[in-house]
Amino acid sequence: MDDRTLAATANTERMRSLRRRFLINGTAAVVGAAGTARAAAPLGAVEREVPADATKIQGYPLEDSSYGSRSQFETEVRTRFKTATPASSWTMTPLQNSIGIITPSGLHFERSHGGTAVIDPTKHMLYVHGMVKQPRKFTMADIRRFPSLSRIMFIECSGNGLTEWSKPTMKTVQGTHGLTSCSEWTGVPLATVLREAGLRTNAKWLLAEGGDASVMTRSIPMAKALKDCLVAYGQNGEALRPEQGYPLRLIVPGYEGNTHIKWLRRIEVSDTPFMTREETSKYTDLMPDGKAVQFSFEMDAKSVITSPSGEMQLDGPGFLEITGLAWSGRGAIRKVEVSTDGGATWKTAALQGPVLPICHTRFRLPWRWDGKAAILQSRCTDDTGYVQPTLGQLIAARGGALNGPIGSIYHLNAIQSWQVANDGKVSNVHHY
Amino acid sequence: MDDRTLAATANTERMRSLRRRFLINGTAAVVGAAGTARAAAPLGAVEREVPADATKIQGYPLEDSSYGSRSQFETEVRTRFKTATPASSWTMTPLQNSIGIITPSGLHFERSHGGTAVIDPTKHMLYVHGMVKQPRKFTMADIRRFPSLSRIMFIECSGNGLTEWSKPTMKTVQGTHGLTSCSEWTGVPLATVLREAGLRTNAKWLLAEGGDASVMTRSIPMAKALKDCLVAYGQNGEALRPEQGYPLRLIVPGYEGNTHIKWLRRIEVSDTPFMTREETSKYTDLMPDGKAVQFSFEMDAKSVITSPSGEMQLDGPGFLEITGLAWSGRGAIRKVEVSTDGGATWKTAALQGPVLPICHTRFRLPWRWDGKAAILQSRCTDDTGYVQPTLGQLIAARGGALNGPIGSIYHLNAIQSWQVANDGKVSNVHHY
Repeated sequence: MDDRTLAATANTERMRSLRRRFLINGTAAVVGAAGTARAAAPLGAVEREVPADATKIQGYPLEDSSYGSRSQFETEVRTRFKTATPASSWTMTPLQNSIGIITPSGLHFERSHGGTAVIDPTKHMLYVHGMVKQPRKFTMADIRRFPSLSRIMFIECSGNGLTEWSKPTMKTVQGTHGLTSCSEWTGVPLATVLREAGLRTNAKWLLAEGGDASVMTRSIPMAKALKDCLVAYGQNGEALRPEQGYPLRLIVPGYEGNTHIKWLRRIEVSDTPFMTREETSKYTDLMPDGKAVQFSFEMDAKSVITSPSGEMQLDGPGFLEITGLAWSGRGAIRKVEVSTDGGATWKTAALQGPVLPICHTRFRLPWRWDGKAAILQSRCTDDTGYVQPTLGQLIAARGGALNGPIGSIYHLNAIQSWQVANDGKVSNVHHY
Repeated sequence: MDDRTLAATANTERMRSLRRRFLINGTAAVVGAAGTARAAAPLGAVEREVPADATKIQGYPLEDSSYGSRSQFETEVRTRFKTATPASSWTMTPLQNSIGIITPSGLHFERSHGGTAVIDPTKHMLYVHGMVKQPRKFTMADIRRFPSLSRIMFIECSGNGLTEWSKPTMKTVQGTHGLTSCSEWTGVPLATVLREAGLRTNAKWLLAEGGDASVMTRSIPMAKALKDCLVAYGQNGEALRPEQGYPLRLIVPGYEGNTHIKWLRRIEVSDTPFMTREETSKYTDLMPDGKAVQFSFEMDAKSVITSPSGEMQLDGPGFLEITGLAWSGRGAIRKVEVSTDGGATWKTAALQGPVLPICHTRFRLPWRWDGKAAILQSRCTDDTGYVQPTLGQLIAARGGALNGPIGSIYHLNAIQSWQVANDGKVSNVHHY
């Protein structure tokens, strides 16, 4: 599957080259062919002439009305995993470039079963019905008039790392771990919306349904819905991005990504789960004995070193900062340990504050590379006391072979190993 | 100055209209005239066809390489204050649309004295010299190899609100308060960089110099430099935006925005401040007695209600959430009180966690509007015990008339008043 990343990189290079050709006097590229203009947009930059000395020439003026873009020198992109069709696919966040805990909205991973729906927010409705006292419908204006709250939280796809069960497959951390991203989400507590409708006795579950082409559905336990779910309209200080469910998505803190229903249009209250396709034929976890575990909602604690990571090239011996991300669907990260000798010895990394529950937590550890081969690993512990397992422990418990007849596909949260070769080249290996 | 906002709005509408005309089959607008394509970019959206029912048609497919953009239905923009030239000007964040605490990078306020410099990061250098043991120069790669840290912090221009001393001038909160924004900044402690050069005895100040056309400079006390300043390369999880000083800016937590030197290229260590133009003829505070206060670095505690705010129209009597932002350059916000009767009575608002030092803090208070005229105010207290003053108190202490011969121009942190009329129309008023 490595060729996907390579192809994407080559494609990016080609696009940049195309854009450069059309650079006109420091203004945005403007061209007569649809393909090229489309290609320029995803990189999110405006090409400008680069002076030899920026102190000797006036900078470009501020615009009367603007929504800024990134520098033309910044090129990291989400890359798509080459599923059969791009309308049911996923793209991955370039975690190798990540800094801090916030994921830029333009680089948040995407997963959809029917492409990205285009919805006019002035026409969008959220229906609440089923075992309620009074069925209700809400416009976006209705939703936004309720009291809101914001929380910085990660969302991780349960399929994050699914290629890595049997052998190290993806070359970069974008490929192995890029289905987790972290944003400041803003919305209305789902409890508030449900209270408006009034729950009947025995209301134990609800169905959340998306308004996209796949009409994606998942069942959520009512206890979770009332505890901390959000009907979210905001991401990183502005409206949700289209691919994150604009104008409305469900946030189910710490649960697997597919439960965070995007383009949310309907909530049906019931006394039992709905047993939709997404929770019967899909998103269950097949165990070694052939039985499937259903409703494995919570994302287990997980960590990964984002730098140095696969495909990076160390400059040479000397000081480096090892840094990465840790997160848990069950609460806050209590500890991250880092090993540079394949798990023989461990050192406790510093955690970047604030350490928030159900949120990416950045860890850092100074390291002096001696120029010899090394295997880098990180292992986190969350505030329930759960310790991130080795891949061996995970396979022993759940099986796990993507192409085998049985075994786990989802919820791979094993310790990741990056091998540093003598020449400083970093690569994805299995070591457990 | 109200016409600036109106003009910007009209301009935005015109641009959207232009873009619609060129919408071709749901793909990005592609046109043959430079002006139009330039006009489309600032809004940061790709125009797509809107289906009548998004469940009946495949959504748009995921791209192989992408950097996402916001929804075409979202139109808030930074607006420029119409200074004589757009190459020395400022744009303001649309706080009326703000949610949570993070400012989207594309909407972070801009302030520059010579336009936005375009700098190739592979050629950029940071020089450290003066009263050091060993002058040093660092490439961006050198800088990024040091241990980093990330902090979510606001930056506020000391000129935020300067139009509001004598009479209520700007119509919206974007105009009155839009020169503050909040991001997760990532960089290397300035102390680390200075340690590499080695400070000589009596090194008490430093000069930070930008590599833009204005070669902007400010003096920073060494105690502050060693305490918590950052040489920052990251903003909200990616590289700094160009208008925020790409590839490198100084972050001086809690100090007035102009000290956060952008396009940072030189640090000179000294035993005295440098008395540059920006800290003698400019960015001083003229007192009623005709003397000027120099080096008024710290931004005093301040708060503002962002919704409801100027130019908004309440739907009608009933429940509303009053929400806004509070911040202090001296630490964390301890308390925000809200009045709906022009300061006669106050209620304590809820603070959205995490409440971080030198960071926007969102406050919220439920309110039931009775349909009668009201005056909304917020008043914050920081963890030093400092209480945000009324405009009357501020004028008594510092004078303050933008066009008068003497009096304060900068550092207006008074309580803001929004008047709600009987018909629900909200407007900027002075009430103290």
